[in-house]
Amino acid sequence: MTAARPDGLPPLVDHHCHGVIRHHPAADEFEGFLTESDRPAAPGTSYLDTQAGFAVRRWCPPVLGLPPHCPPADYLARRAEIGPDEARRLLLTAAGIGTYLVDTGLPGPLTGPAETAESGGGTGHEVVRLETLAERAAQHAASAEEFTDALARSVREAAAHAVAFKTVAAYRHGLALSAHPPGRDVVHAAARAWLAAGPDRLTDPLLLRHLIELAVATGLPLQLHTGFGDPDLRLHHADPSLLTDFVRATADTGTPLVLLHCYPYHRQAAYLAAAYPHVYADVGLTLGHTGAHAAAVLAEFLELAPFGKLLFSTDAYGLPELYTVGSAVFRTALRTVLDDWTHHGAWSYEDAARVAALIAAGNARRLYGLGDGP
Amino acid sequence: MTAARPDGLPPLVDHHCHGVIRHHPAADEFEGFLTESDRPAAPGTSYLDTQAGFAVRRWCPPVLGLPPHCPPADYLARRAEIGPDEARRLLLTAAGIGTYLVDTGLPGPLTGPAETAESGGGTGHEVVRLETLAERAAQHAASAEEFTDALARSVREAAAHAVAFKTVAAYRHGLALSAHPPGRDVVHAAARAWLAAGPDRLTDPLLLRHLIELAVATGLPLQLHTGFGDPDLRLHHADPSLLTDFVRATADTGTPLVLLHCYPYHRQAAYLAAAYPHVYADVGLTLGHTGAHAAAVLAEFLELAPFGKLLFSTDAYGLPELYTVGSAVFRTALRTVLDDWTHHGAWSYEDAARVAALIAAGNARRLYGLGDGP
Amino acid sequence: MTAARPDGLPPLVDHHCHGVIRHHPAADEFEGFLTESDRPAAPGTSYLDTQAGFAVRRWCPPVLGLPPHCPPADYLARRAEIGPDEARRLLLTAAGIGTYLVDTGLPGPLTGPAETAESGGGTGHEVVRLETLAERAAQHAASAEEFTDALARSVREAAAHAVAFKTVAAYRHGLALSAHPPGRDVVHAAARAWLAAGPDRLTDPLLLRHLIELAVATGLPLQLHTGFGDPDLRLHHADPSLLTDFVRATADTGTPLVLLHCYPYHRQAAYLAAAYPHVYADVGLTLGHTGAHAAAVLAEFLELAPFGKLLFSTDAYGLPELYTVGSAVFRTALRTVLDDWTHHGAWSYEDAARVAALIAAGNARRLYGLGDGP
Repeated sequence: MTAARPDGLPPLVDHHCHGVIRHHPAADEFEGFLTESDRPAAPGTSYLDTQAGFAVRRWCPPVLGLPPHCPPADYLARRAEIGPDEARRLLLTAAGIGTYLVDTGLPGPLTGPAETAESGGGTGHEVVRLETLAERAAQHAASAEEFTDALARSVREAAAHAVAFKTVAAYRHGLALSAHPPGRDVVHAAARAWLAAGPDRLTDPLLLRHLIELAVATGLPLQLHTGFGDPDLRLHHADPSLLTDFVRATADTGTPLVLLHCYPYHRQAAYLAAAYPHVYADVGLTLGHTGAHAAAVLAEFLELAPFGKLLFSTDAYGLPELYTVGSAVFRTALRTVLDDWTHHGAWSYEDAARVAALIAAGNARRLYGLGDGP
Repeated sequence: MTAARPDGLPPLVDHHCHGVIRHHPAADEFEGFLTESDRPAAPGTSYLDTQAGFAVRRWCPPVLGLPPHCPPADYLARRAEIGPDEARRLLLTAAGIGTYLVDTGLPGPLTGPAETAESGGGTGHEVVRLETLAERAAQHAASAEEFTDALARSVREAAAHAVAFKTVAAYRHGLALSAHPPGRDVVHAAARAWLAAGPDRLTDPLLLRHLIELAVATGLPLQLHTGFGDPDLRLHHADPSLLTDFVRATADTGTPLVLLHCYPYHRQAAYLAAAYPHVYADVGLTLGHTGAHAAAVLAEFLELAPFGKLLFSTDAYGLPELYTVGSAVFRTALRTVLDDWTHHGAWSYEDAARVAALIAAGNARRLYGLGDGP
Repeated sequence: MTAARPDGLPPLVDHHCHGVIRHHPAADEFEGFLTESDRPAAPGTSYLDTQAGFAVRRWCPPVLGLPPHCPPADYLARRAEIGPDEARRLLLTAAGIGTYLVDTGLPGPLTGPAETAESGGGTGHEVVRLETLAERAAQHAASAEEFTDALARSVREAAAHAVAFKTVAAYRHGLALSAHPPGRDVVHAAARAWLAAGPDRLTDPLLLRHLIELAVATGLPLQLHTGFGDPDLRLHHADPSLLTDFVRATADTGTPLVLLHCYPYHRQAAYLAAAYPHVYADVGLTLGHTGAHAAAVLAEFLELAPFGKLLFSTDAYGLPELYTVGSAVFRTALRTVLDDWTHHGAWSYEDAARVAALIAAGNARRLYGLGDGP
């Protein structure tokens, strides 16, 4: 079990992350996991020359016994020597994460929640991606009715074991979701059209809204991708303030909404978390990708967001290094921000320690019903 | 009369604020005034755990003879002991505000401009909220014609004693105001429809635009709510850059436009203040609500905005504590920013002191015609 | 030839700038060049009281032998004494720029690329503004066909000697450019309408998109104005994320897109540079206009943008002082940011020096094919 660190934080709850690869990555595969882009880096440039790349170079070599900022080739050579299993164990253990909430909706041979958590000495839970459920249901459905029945059933079944749902509607349509879920006939018509087209990627806004309503009805926290991500996104369509009508419509359902990532609209997300009791915001991905400047970004989250509403995550995917980095950058940024505010007397030390523990773990424990912790 | 402070600032001009309650608030009422939300805090959280809450805990206990950051219950107990009148006097006097421009458009038994100012040893003036004028005129109007006549008269009458008008069109419709005010017939038709529906909250964009035009015609500064506020708002509809067409249409009227709050679009507001001579921007509310990080936000206002265009306010409402905090956070943020810039030689000390006095009081004195000050 | 500075940076490549005046400016003309506004400053205010004004007062007097922050009148008096040619030579030499990429599309008797560069001891190249080409072609065209032929020819001819094209479509229509260029008939119809109206300022979105397509086809880097600028702009229409469809449509052309200025949407621009290999972002204009706070803004650019994708510029126009200031503010901001990150161990010193040289010159040399430098 993961113990408290010298920085005083309890074992972290990583409330949004993904599985990692089990093999040793070649240099270009390794570099590819450091970017949200889906293409090779521009001529003469490298994705290692980013905040994410520099953060990996700072935090990971010491875990494998090398000096920080050593040449990437040295790091990869040592990593190959150690082997992928031991590297994963070392890198995840270094992260000090006690609880992993793993989004299992990505394809590929990645570690699952239990396997991921075990490598880091923690506990795993599943976050179920809604669009993946829908796309699976569509593959086996002979009619729109069969599809909607199967979908409702699979959301109900998932709710029985998952700790949260996640939607990537931001990628598929954008966040200007209607306040009102579509009626039965409208859903059937949309499903019919989608099935007829040979269903693959779900992008129909009516079906997306219907799917989200099914999830809201379960009462489980709903994680929504907002802000930056893969190029498969119009950034301004992922501004969380576009969710306002949807947020108002769900205010009395008792279902918490968790805005993931948020950047560069994190101040907007923090406003929603301040204005609506059921809205929460995630600081992960953003901190790992802003690296050396993460403290400034975290401080911006902390301008308007109530301190009981912010949640740590790594959004790690593919490379175990991203767990190490997500945790280390978060710890460093949090300490930098709170040292500054306590040093100037704006916050008391007691309050700073309490808020740090909330963001690191306490808020997620309360929100996802994880109990009092390890 | 309020004298200059050890920080060298003249008595502040609070160019946008509200009345305060006269009774001792219970704990939950107290907490409710610290948030822009209209609902109880989420389970397991408190609105005291926000920058605004921590700022109150830092700045107000010492005014009542308690240590900063003492437990909220201790503070409220001492406050009850002292009584609401003396607490108000102490808290407002501590703010060092010489002139209060009070928006009187909020309902409830709040102190008026003179009473508010007297508690703090300053002078009060009235800012008249346009939508309140319209809603009052509608209550007594038997026809659209009677309504528009009464409205025109009440705007004219208000202009005779007010120092500024204020509009909350951002809440009612959003800031994408037409460049062109609607014609007489269109206004009458819209008024007829509104009156027929049983006029309460004015949300019709034509009537809002007409109302604003009446205010612009008086030549008094027009304060416009922009940026964050109550949940009764779509944040992205309150982006001040949406005002561009309206700003251009009023550029030659001689009527100043004052963008209130602005956050998180304060850089956009600062741009408008840089690009258009008749546009000004307010740093209040935003600083009080961003607390320990207010210096960073103030510095962002100061990126593009000409220094003759920024105005201090508290936007205090309900609690006299919000005057104390608004003033203290502003003073601290301003000193932090200017110390940094003078320390590194980017600004001279003389310029820094001059700009500080402009934002604290001088710009508002010039803009609202308040004379040379106490 | 310009040599490396004590700060270790190579001679800068200013990848986007303009010519300067040859005469001595009167005080009001001087002040007018410090703002993006096209009107006199508001009553009681001065455009010298801005970050740009304070930056000029910090950096330029020492170049002419006066103390920093001396009264503007003293500075202008000394400048008159020295004469415009010598002042230009001193101010440009102080900038330490080795290569000037000059946008020649602005009217007025300004220095051209060679003359500008010569004053600073550097080399000049031309950036051709597309809308100026189109407006010139329209003046001599008797028919839509003649116009489109002449336009295609002039873009081709310009490509033979220019290092890049530039578009100000953000001003003329906004950045929501169609992914698809219009067909021949549509272009002819739009050209016919424009010519019939007596062509002056090109604002037709179809013609703008056609013009941009001609430039993209040449393979030369295309600079796009994004973010703030003259009042002749709706700021929110200049958000670079509006370019997403266009960016995707050009991803396989091999033509680099360079997002100019970007502020206050520089985080959005940095995201595009991270997500799409052919997108680059410019930190100029923004840094000069944010002056004492430029380090914070530069750090925001450096959050998501790959370090091989950011480019220095001054966007200097009219006053040679703006070259001095653009360079000095950039150097200071860069040093401030990198000192902080290396000091805290987030970056190694070697990496910091390498990245600094990339942004200062290396990225532009690679992108514009300028060879290995002076």
